[in-house]
Amino acid sequence: MSDILLVLNAGSSSIKFALYEAHTEPTQDHLICEGGIGSLGHCPHHKVVDRHGATVHEAYLPEGAGHDDAIAALIGWIEQRFPDQRIAAAGHRVVHGGDLFDAPAHIDAGVIEQLRSFIPLAPLHQPHSVAAIEALAKLHPKLPQVACFDTAFHHHLPPVATWFALPRELTAQGVRRYGFHGISYEYIASQLPTVAGQEIADGRVVVGHLGAGASMCAMHARKSIATSMGFTALDGLMMGSRTGVLDPGVVLYLLQQKGMTPDAISDLLYRQSGLLGVSSISDDMRTLLASDDPRAEEAIALFVYRIGRELGSLAAALGGLDALVFTAGIGERAPEIRRRVCAQAAWLGVVLDGHANANLSGAGRISSDESKVAVWVIPTDEDLMIACQVWRLVDGGRPA
Amino acid sequence: MSDILLVLNAGSSSIKFALYEAHTEPTQDHLICEGGIGSLGHCPHHKVVDRHGATVHEAYLPEGAGHDDAIAALIGWIEQRFPDQRIAAAGHRVVHGGDLFDAPAHIDAGVIEQLRSFIPLAPLHQPHSVAAIEALAKLHPKLPQVACFDTAFHHHLPPVATWFALPRELTAQGVRRYGFHGISYEYIASQLPTVAGQEIADGRVVVGHLGAGASMCAMHARKSIATSMGFTALDGLMMGSRTGVLDPGVVLYLLQQKGMTPDAISDLLYRQSGLLGVSSISDDMRTLLASDDPRAEEAIALFVYRIGRELGSLAAALGGLDALVFTAGIGERAPEIRRRVCAQAAWLGVVLDGHANANLSGAGRISSDESKVAVWVIPTDEDLMIACQVWRLVDGGRPA
Repeated sequence: MSDILLVLNAGSSSIKFALYEAHTEPTQDHLICEGGIGSLGHCPHHKVVDRHGATVHEAYLPEGAGHDDAIAALIGWIEQRFPDQRIAAAGHRVVHGGDLFDAPAHIDAGVIEQLRSFIPLAPLHQPHSVAAIEALAKLHPKLPQVACFDTAFHHHLPPVATWFALPRELTAQGVRRYGFHGISYEYIASQLPTVAGQEIADGRVVVGHLGAGASMCAMHARKSIATSMGFTALDGLMMGSRTGVLDPGVVLYLLQQKGMTPDAISDLLYRQSGLLGVSSISDDMRTLLASDDPRAEEAIALFVYRIGRELGSLAAALGGLDALVFTAGIGERAPEIRRRVCAQAAWLGVVLDGHANANLSGAGRISSDESKVAVWVIPTDEDLMIACQVWRLVDGGRPA
Repeated sequence: MSDILLVLNAGSSSIKFALYEAHTEPTQDHLICEGGIGSLGHCPHHKVVDRHGATVHEAYLPEGAGHDDAIAALIGWIEQRFPDQRIAAAGHRVVHGGDLFDAPAHIDAGVIEQLRSFIPLAPLHQPHSVAAIEALAKLHPKLPQVACFDTAFHHHLPPVATWFALPRELTAQGVRRYGFHGISYEYIASQLPTVAGQEIADGRVVVGHLGAGASMCAMHARKSIATSMGFTALDGLMMGSRTGVLDPGVVLYLLQQKGMTPDAISDLLYRQSGLLGVSSISDDMRTLLASDDPRAEEAIALFVYRIGRELGSLAAALGGLDALVFTAGIGERAPEIRRRVCAQAAWLGVVLDGHANANLSGAGRISSDESKVAVWVIPTDEDLMIACQVWRLVDGGRPA
């Protein structure tokens, strides 16, 4: 009987998972399979692929299946498929650790209460993490579970980088910048010494996590110094369907002059804006890059422009820039976006190697030798980061 | 009988004015007197000083006097005090010109309607400008009146610098970045060639208008390329009592989780935040600089930090930086703030001349010879800018 680690990421309409071997600290080579159950609520669809992307399982769950049913189906499938292996521990991606957690945490009843207390801070995401933790605890009361936080990497931001210019009573109540995508940034930080070298790892690096959700993080010696997401994951860069940062006067205008309800505004800013809202075409960068519609070009231009402005702002927080790293869907797989971001960053001393940029697969340097700022692409792996955090915390998967 | 020009700036509880000789394009030497009626609604107070700051008139208006009474009292006083002079034209500071006005405009019934249509965009300021224009027209129906806009200088921003990542239908309805403090920026731009030299005037300059309201503007060859204020004057830098830019998720949180009303949030973000909110002491930088309370230091640190971040962002918009200009109350009269901003901007090549900075009065250069970025202080003069705009538009004060 060998041990395996389960990584879970519960969202509003899906539960994603990955399984890793647990006989040693996991690497990408220890991924056994990954997948999830999507479209919860309508035709829930269970799909699993192996490490090479080949489908190993595909099925539909009964109509109406919810998060609890999905967890049960997932665990049932794992136990049936891997009868000789034992789930030694589970790690959950948890969006919000408030100001309590600067590292992964063993989950017990007290921690669950603490996670629940952050639901008002992340009402769209946090309840699903808590529900998944509780559903799994019901099935396997003795299974060690670990919460891995998207906020933890930013826990030690300089105070001035966390404050909004709000009355200090509100700041004390937790209305401050937390930052997100921390699991991804921690993974990139862990890769910097081997991929980009110790000198860059010790230097001033801006990482652009550019996916459907997008943010940027300024790191000095692999510590977060500033980041574009704030109190919520709505802040900062333009995203697939989110505005990113916005004049708060616009929200007041929509309320007071347009008579919109808070829920309608929330839907507008989270789901109808960003690439989708500006293009009126798609929230998917691939679709926009393939389009010759001028509205697609406008959306792309704004996306790139705002990355360029944020890069200047984060370079200011760092007092200069030694390296720029692209990661996540768009960052890893859209050389045209990288080319345009680098062109806008020429004033910082960025010189792209066009050939390297266009032909890269996986991790690699895409700046030319004369570039004052090294530019790298490093694919992120949040599941692996969670698996490693779990492995370290529970001593190789065996409860301490 | 000689001609004079009247400059009016109507706010929510005050009407400010200045009088200029009109026999030639006005300069500071042609200021006759300035002042205003403040505290409208409670003990309205009418005070006028001459060009050297000596009081020439001081009186209280009857309790309950409103904007119309104030205009009438002001005009009555001018006509009594200067019986041999004729008000040839009046210029109004108007906050919002929407997307219609890229220059000062002769006011007629049609323009008044257009100004009125922008009230929803600036509900706290625009109604008072319109009211002052109408009150003056009632008293002097034939007097040429000119609207000078705080938005006009930013009218030709690159489109990408005006878009929020909102659905394009909202952008088309006018929910976009306009930018403000344009009369001040236009004045600074007009001074750049003579004060800082033609090379800098033609280059990439960031101007920090740092007053109770604060914003920054990136100019290339004296044209606005990007600016920190947006759809409203709430956006951008931290101010005396305003937050500046804020994660829109915070506004949603205050609505949905805290149950605050839109009016209460508006009051919070406009009147209880900024230096006042963070310090809990004062909205006045002089008070904070004189305090040894650590909360005052936190407010100052955040104010400076956010200027530093915005400077990096605006340098990105310009593709580099040739000069930095400080203006308005804090920018002109707080050498300690300038020192700290310049220290944070060292990464851009800014080197301060500490002696020049500490001992400057009026306009002057405060960067050292080896500074890659020239740093200047240039006092702004919005009244004079309006007087000049009026003089040019009405051909020396005489209707065309």
